[in-house]
Amino acid sequence: MESSNNNNEDMVVTPWEVKGKVDYERLIRDFGTQSITPELLKKVEKITGKLHPQLKRHIFFSHRDLDTVLNLYDKGTKFVLYTGRGPSGPVHIGHLIPWIFTLHLQKKFGVRLYFQMTDDEKFLIDDKIDLQDTKKYSYENALDLIALGFKPEDTFIIYDVEDIDLLYDIALEVAKRITYSTAKASFGFKDNTNIGWIFWPAIQAVPCFIHKKLTGENLPALIPAAIDQDPYWRVTRDIAQKLGYFKPAQIHCRFLPGLGTGGKMSASKPETSIFTHDKPEIVKRKIWNAYTGGKPTAAEQRKTGANPSICSIYQYFFYLFEEDDKKLDVRLNKCRKGEILCGECKKELVQRLNMFLREHQEKREKAKDVIEQYHIKR
Amino acid sequence: MESSNNNNEDMVVTPWEVKGKVDYERLIRDFGTQSITPELLKKVEKITGKLHPQLKRHIFFSHRDLDTVLNLYDKGTKFVLYTGRGPSGPVHIGHLIPWIFTLHLQKKFGVRLYFQMTDDEKFLIDDKIDLQDTKKYSYENALDLIALGFKPEDTFIIYDVEDIDLLYDIALEVAKRITYSTAKASFGFKDNTNIGWIFWPAIQAVPCFIHKKLTGENLPALIPAAIDQDPYWRVTRDIAQKLGYFKPAQIHCRFLPGLGTGGKMSASKPETSIFTHDKPEIVKRKIWNAYTGGKPTAAEQRKTGANPSICSIYQYFFYLFEEDDKKLDVRLNKCRKGEILCGECKKELVQRLNMFLREHQEKREKAKDVIEQYHIKR
Repeated sequence: MESSNNNNEDMVVTPWEVKGKVDYERLIRDFGTQSITPELLKKVEKITGKLHPQLKRHIFFSHRDLDTVLNLYDKGTKFVLYTGRGPSGPVHIGHLIPWIFTLHLQKKFGVRLYFQMTDDEKFLIDDKIDLQDTKKYSYENALDLIALGFKPEDTFIIYDVEDIDLLYDIALEVAKRITYSTAKASFGFKDNTNIGWIFWPAIQAVPCFIHKKLTGENLPALIPAAIDQDPYWRVTRDIAQKLGYFKPAQIHCRFLPGLGTGGKMSASKPETSIFTHDKPEIVKRKIWNAYTGGKPTAAEQRKTGANPSICSIYQYFFYLFEEDDKKLDVRLNKCRKGEILCGECKKELVQRLNMFLREHQEKREKAKDVIEQYHIKR
Repeated sequence: MESSNNNNEDMVVTPWEVKGKVDYERLIRDFGTQSITPELLKKVEKITGKLHPQLKRHIFFSHRDLDTVLNLYDKGTKFVLYTGRGPSGPVHIGHLIPWIFTLHLQKKFGVRLYFQMTDDEKFLIDDKIDLQDTKKYSYENALDLIALGFKPEDTFIIYDVEDIDLLYDIALEVAKRITYSTAKASFGFKDNTNIGWIFWPAIQAVPCFIHKKLTGENLPALIPAAIDQDPYWRVTRDIAQKLGYFKPAQIHCRFLPGLGTGGKMSASKPETSIFTHDKPEIVKRKIWNAYTGGKPTAAEQRKTGANPSICSIYQYFFYLFEEDDKKLDVRLNKCRKGEILCGECKKELVQRLNMFLREHQEKREKAKDVIEQYHIKR
């Protein structure tokens, strides 16, 4: 399954696999998306006030039609947010990045979120997973979403298998207009791909359009998601207008690097990810074992400095655990000059992670009482 | 779309198209099904008593695993019947043939029928049809089924789009186990086939297995249907046991020839079919215009006889409108000897057809009051 390039070193970025060192500029060219320009950021800032760190730091770095959606918004046409999760395992910090940003957009723009739990997809693409597993993780993962602070009145979680009766008619309209050759070219389907997987892109398209069915109101969807999901939206964009809908817009984020080297965090390599259920001692162990840009000895590091650009610890501060730009800069410069050792950064990160996780885990417990209020069939 | 042969004259038999002169012996060879032998008929007769005319006349001529199902039945394991309809237009006499036989089996064996209205399939395969059309015809066609005398306690109509929530989890289990190459080989899918159509065989498989989900009881399904549907069951049979179900058994019927020449009755050529809603004058006109084996003049026919084997009128008597074998034989011989003219046969058939349709139309009206009792979600 290769929807993108793999002729350059080892980079593979598809909806099902991300590996190698990710070249984001190249993804923009290969996928045919747009950079988020300083002008566009100004436009966002005019509406939302102070830019979210994930925008200022170019963690969200690419888009399709974000400008169009903002122009429509200026003229009084709102939009809906749409993102989702493939519930094949527990949630890690990397999954939270776009959700946190989505919550920010929801608050600033005052718009509705449709959140798709793609239990059917995860079942179809993974031989080892059954529908009981995906159902369990759908529930568990929804708790993580709710724990971030989404409000039920604006948040509608779709569980594909349970809610298929809401989705199927729109999925049929979509599927009728996507040929096998288009799907093959977009997703790299092969002769041994199963026929459920081949159909599935039609299901993923539905939340782009479902708002009209539920409310009568035709609004564009804006999809904040990691860029590996882009192939789905290309196909959906091609058929949206034929069906009388707006083309869905996207805003694409980078992957939080794993605690090892390269790639995005991967639930299949649990030592390289911090899961939201991790206990403090586990977090400590994972962070202490993490890959950094440090030198073999403290003496050498004090003398020649370290390399934060390849340091997974620094990336955690950059992505989520240091909102203050000045403090982040201080850390960066100290690291380069050898004025701070890896152990100090690790210790601070463990503290911040565990503080974050303690709160998150509490909120996650409370979410169990209200999870039904978020179901699209509430 | 060619699942079967078309290298012999013009015969094409697929789930979507039947044309040319159908060679049923060849279909048995090409599809790899079994003839219904005299021994098997005796086995049926032992259970049901007097054979139904559609068995005695070899209108049902081929099967898969009918013997297995009967052996299980002998030992106390019942089965369920499963057949269906693609609701893309009104029902004609040709559609009723296997339904009438299904009703006979249901009564004699005391078993449940699952009847699938494949509104999703018809929508996916026909550019000119929308989901409103298929919904309307699902309702209309169900009235025709009920009018035949099925009892609600044993008859469960599945409307695919409306009932997808009952079907989807089983469809996913099926779809996960069918590769694109298998589907392509079985159904002749091409690069321009839409992805909904490619997935759809998984939906058609579900009623073979749904009884267990609804009742907890694992029973084989026996599917009476025209032989053009066979490719679906080949694929379903291949995966049934992997999922813990019996392989579905089939019993295949011939197509009632159209009133023109060759092929099965076709809703796209309305003059060659008698629809259940046809008014008496319409029936009269269609029958009077029908193709027969008659001679150009009455004098010639009286002298040399006619050819009933190519006569569509004779086929109507054979399939449905002359249950008495002796009377049918008399008609056959008189025709061959020129002792009866086409006008006489046509006149009699018009009478019988209109009598049948008057009653059917009355029952169909009454079915409107009880149709909900037949819905699988009653």
